[in-house]
Amino acid sequence: MSEIELGITADMHVHLRDESMSELITPTVREGGVAICYVMPNLVPPITTKKQVVDYKKKLEELSPSTTFLMSFYLSKELTPELIEECAREGLVHGIKCYPAGVTTNSKYGVDPNDFSSFYPLFEVMQKHKLILNIHGEKPSTEKENDINVINAEPRFLPALKKLHQDFPQLKIVLEHCTTADAVALVREINSGYKPGDEIYVGATITAHHLYLIIDDWAGNPINFCKPVAKFQKDRATLVEAATSGEPWFFFGSDSAPHPIDTKKRHVSVCAGVYTQSHAIAYVAEVFAKADKLANLKNFVSDNGINFYGLSDAILSKHKGESVWLVKRENKVPEAIANVDVTVVPFKAGETLNYCVEWR
Amino acid sequence: MSEIELGITADMHVHLRDESMSELITPTVREGGVAICYVMPNLVPPITTKKQVVDYKKKLEELSPSTTFLMSFYLSKELTPELIEECAREGLVHGIKCYPAGVTTNSKYGVDPNDFSSFYPLFEVMQKHKLILNIHGEKPSTEKENDINVINAEPRFLPALKKLHQDFPQLKIVLEHCTTADAVALVREINSGYKPGDEIYVGATITAHHLYLIIDDWAGNPINFCKPVAKFQKDRATLVEAATSGEPWFFFGSDSAPHPIDTKKRHVSVCAGVYTQSHAIAYVAEVFAKADKLANLKNFVSDNGINFYGLSDAILSKHKGESVWLVKRENKVPEAIANVDVTVVPFKAGETLNYCVEWR
Repeated sequence: MSEIELGITADMHVHLRDESMSELITPTVREGGVAICYVMPNLVPPITTKKQVVDYKKKLEELSPSTTFLMSFYLSKELTPELIEECAREGLVHGIKCYPAGVTTNSKYGVDPNDFSSFYPLFEVMQKHKLILNIHGEKPSTEKENDINVINAEPRFLPALKKLHQDFPQLKIVLEHCTTADAVALVREINSGYKPGDEIYVGATITAHHLYLIIDDWAGNPINFCKPVAKFQKDRATLVEAATSGEPWFFFGSDSAPHPIDTKKRHVSVCAGVYTQSHAIAYVAEVFAKADKLANLKNFVSDNGINFYGLSDAILSKHKGESVWLVKRENKVPEAIANVDVTVVPFKAGETLNYCVEWR
Repeated sequence: MSEIELGITADMHVHLRDESMSELITPTVREGGVAICYVMPNLVPPITTKKQVVDYKKKLEELSPSTTFLMSFYLSKELTPELIEECAREGLVHGIKCYPAGVTTNSKYGVDPNDFSSFYPLFEVMQKHKLILNIHGEKPSTEKENDINVINAEPRFLPALKKLHQDFPQLKIVLEHCTTADAVALVREINSGYKPGDEIYVGATITAHHLYLIIDDWAGNPINFCKPVAKFQKDRATLVEAATSGEPWFFFGSDSAPHPIDTKKRHVSVCAGVYTQSHAIAYVAEVFAKADKLANLKNFVSDNGINFYGLSDAILSKHKGESVWLVKRENKVPEAIANVDVTVVPFKAGETLNYCVEWR
């Protein structure tokens, strides 16, 4: 196959930041081959009001008019069931992102993953309106007494996900950027009774970079350091197998998380995040090609995410008449992308990928 | 105890580099409370000739005349049994350092740890003269096909250590900077038949920083990144327990490994190594105090290493009439130490330790 039609592509986990960084990054969603993206709310301050959503969405649309931005709230005590009800009815937000306090960039406003119960009234409303609960599935490493570390933080979180699904069996939950074989196994276990046509309640996003990296790749290479950290070969192989499987509960969420290069070149407190937006589909395609699974690429980067989110024809109609094509052609990742204020080094900077995207 | 006499202290694993860095670092051996140090040979090019040893030792002695420098060769094909025989007789070197190829700073000249047999003629001579074989005990992470990574590299190396000890039961071997509970367990297993007065053939050094760090401490903090990497809480706790136990096969080797700060502030290819020399004994004392084991500190930082190395009275006599004392007094680690050419950020820069050393 030298060309594949991918249709309307979706990246269900993007960080588009604000100000100069947002101006630099937001147009690269489309450049990377993505039509629809689901925007994370971890700005400073986090997005918890209707006005913030409206203003942020407007800014993003100005920066990239052809891109569809699905918006989210930041799970916090600021949110009320009434607000969620109202925004859901208006179709203003598609979900709420849950950050355990202290695990990653701007997560200090996050929640205690040992006790979601105070949010149960919100979850009731979300379940009713099919809003998505997006979970950063890690126990905070700050829990030293429980021996939580960057390697076991995700597996140790999984029982909380399981319980939440039991308590809200019809709440749509995404385990974001899953990084371990344990996480993949739990998502499969939860969906084991699935029959074609069933609604899926628990899905998982997989990033591009976690299809490539293991611990050795970020040890000593801050550019590859992100949260959750990349784990071991067994985990990476399982993620590749899951992403390329075509199973409808696995879909693409790049977790592309740009940071200014000077926050990567530090001897302490390096920012966590890998920037992949500008070449998102090409990175993923490369892995699918190597696994000889290009036939399942459209499931992963388009259909599965769109179906899980239940996107309406009204939303999809914006992209009527256009389609993303994967084309086999050399595609050099630049050493950096920059504007006058900010420089970001992309994943695999300077390397040459084998695939490009074209909009037709 | 507000003061403890530590006698003649020994740090059996130091990196003193060359040129400007050596000028900056070498005097800090004594400032850190260490009388005798065992000097690693991983310069560029590595130390493999008699002339290199003589010249390097002379330079170091000029930089710090009061310090005793025990010298080593870099295990490589350049070394001949005749050379080793000659240097051992003259007391010029105390051991040979074995670096598996590709595991750490300047280890590209190293050996294949899957096959030591080509060095068996050297080991025969070493055994005869009680020269120490110092082993960096990691399988190279480059062995992707064997699923070697920075976490399992040391445990996966241990069978090679066991075999070497079986093949050369009277060769004195040090497993350097051990970082895992598995390594501690093997060293104890090998020494399980020990009775007081027996010669010890397999020992292990433990660094100061591995008594403090786990994986979370270097994830995102290049200043704490070293090889072998710090592992998990269980490993750290086992290292503290081993170091403070007083057992004679565990002794101090700081693996203090200074790098210019600009090689730590990188987004890729951060240099591996933690610099602890200037406050070596104070870092260790802090951990012993917390474990309520200060009574065993002298075993760890003095007696055990000196006994394992079998240092002669001729060597020790240089330090006759002086003794290192540990004194309880606030000791601020500077933000950096520097000369006109090079700046190094020490471990725990800016923090205040509770102990100092005094030479009396």
